[in-house]
Amino acid sequence: MPDSGGDSVIGRVVRLLSAFDRNSRSLPLTTLANRADLPLTTTHRLVNELVKHGLLERAPNKEISIGLRLWEISARGSHTMTLREAALPFMEDLQTILRQHVSLAVLDAGSVLFLERLASPDSTLDAGRMAERYPLHGCSTGLVLLAFSSPEYQAKVLSGPLDKLTDRTVTDPVLLRRILAEVRQQRFFYAAGFGIERWSGIAVPIMGEHGAVIAALTVVYARGEENVLTAVPAMQTVATSIARAIAATPVARDGNRSS
Amino acid sequence: MPDSGGDSVIGRVVRLLSAFDRNSRSLPLTTLANRADLPLTTTHRLVNELVKHGLLERAPNKEISIGLRLWEISARGSHTMTLREAALPFMEDLQTILRQHVSLAVLDAGSVLFLERLASPDSTLDAGRMAERYPLHGCSTGLVLLAFSSPEYQAKVLSGPLDKLTDRTVTDPVLLRRILAEVRQQRFFYAAGFGIERWSGIAVPIMGEHGAVIAALTVVYARGEENVLTAVPAMQTVATSIARAIAATPVARDGNRSS
Repeated sequence: MPDSGGDSVIGRVVRLLSAFDRNSRSLPLTTLANRADLPLTTTHRLVNELVKHGLLERAPNKEISIGLRLWEISARGSHTMTLREAALPFMEDLQTILRQHVSLAVLDAGSVLFLERLASPDSTLDAGRMAERYPLHGCSTGLVLLAFSSPEYQAKVLSGPLDKLTDRTVTDPVLLRRILAEVRQQRFFYAAGFGIERWSGIAVPIMGEHGAVIAALTVVYARGEENVLTAVPAMQTVATSIARAIAATPVARDGNRSS
Repeated sequence: MPDSGGDSVIGRVVRLLSAFDRNSRSLPLTTLANRADLPLTTTHRLVNELVKHGLLERAPNKEISIGLRLWEISARGSHTMTLREAALPFMEDLQTILRQHVSLAVLDAGSVLFLERLASPDSTLDAGRMAERYPLHGCSTGLVLLAFSSPEYQAKVLSGPLDKLTDRTVTDPVLLRRILAEVRQQRFFYAAGFGIERWSGIAVPIMGEHGAVIAALTVVYARGEENVLTAVPAMQTVATSIARAIAATPVARDGNRSS
């Protein structure tokens, strides 16, 4: 079977699906082919089949987008959703108290992946969206996740590259090591302007059994408006509640929905 | 190329991915092969490739689960997420006021698909989860979505099959037609015990431009505790706010995050 693009069917499908993002949720076929670096005929054939299975959708204007079925499969099957479901009610409580954006993130493939963000209408900051990625050294969230990773993993990340995102991003490995030690001791980190100049992030770890970090909980303030002394105890309490809810989860609970 | 299972690579991949659900978020390879109705060798080969691309993950105990990358692709690219992001802050407001579970759903492939559910700690009901499906005639949500569908689509759904989910599920097409007419006029529906005996649902439509229904907003009460007169005006107000937020969305807004 001739292999356009030199990779497998699955590889090509992944490239097609990865061509969409939040600024390009619908794409014409030719743009999609370009972005996925695939011949138009291959793209056409694969898109037809993906549409048939509901993984892609074709609008009346012929533009292609990610299908609901793909979202359904991933939302229903993913372990991530166990974490998100356990965390969401507590995140809402925290947002009600602090009146700032609250987010939940995990460490995945060398970066911070945000699983959920609750935007506060009282915040002056434009809230980020779900499913965004951020460099580990460039935000409070990433530094908390990194602090509780293995020494080998930390060494790998600290060996770079470590980009400057703002003037305040810490990129010196020695200084970063000191930050990580501090985070392990204090169980929170406060980063003013590390990732975005006028943002301050405060993050705390959500710890699993055996001292492994499961996720990080973050609150974002406009710089100069943060209240670390108020936020941290509330966040640490909520993180403990989430950890307990995850430990208690759900398989058993799932059975009795229709009783 | 020999085709184990008689279908395409994409078809087989869809069967593998669909084998997971919220009660089986991790599966051993043999169970996965059985569920997907594929030979063990084919399953093994496809799983290896899907793990390589991050669409599946393999735990230290060798069990397979849906990968974060699949969730990331679908959450970032899907139009559904535009809707969910626009709706979430208003759903939180509604939950704060009514102190009951609030959900957001769309009509997809002949059934109700729940995109989001905010569980209220004050409710005595076990909240459902995201990405669940429900028959259109078996809940207030489905009847609201169906009421604003095309007459042809309604006729197709009403021609059955229409299962009885509880003693109170309406399955008579004549009666259902009357319900749909009522929903179009009143712009809400209150269903006591249609889908689950001891639940009552109240649903309102979220209308797009040109009078098409985009989604439905639902509040669930324990039967006997519902307060329709309080809930409906609050829900209709919130549905209008969500519709306005969707109309105003986002592409333009997305650009200025890191400013």
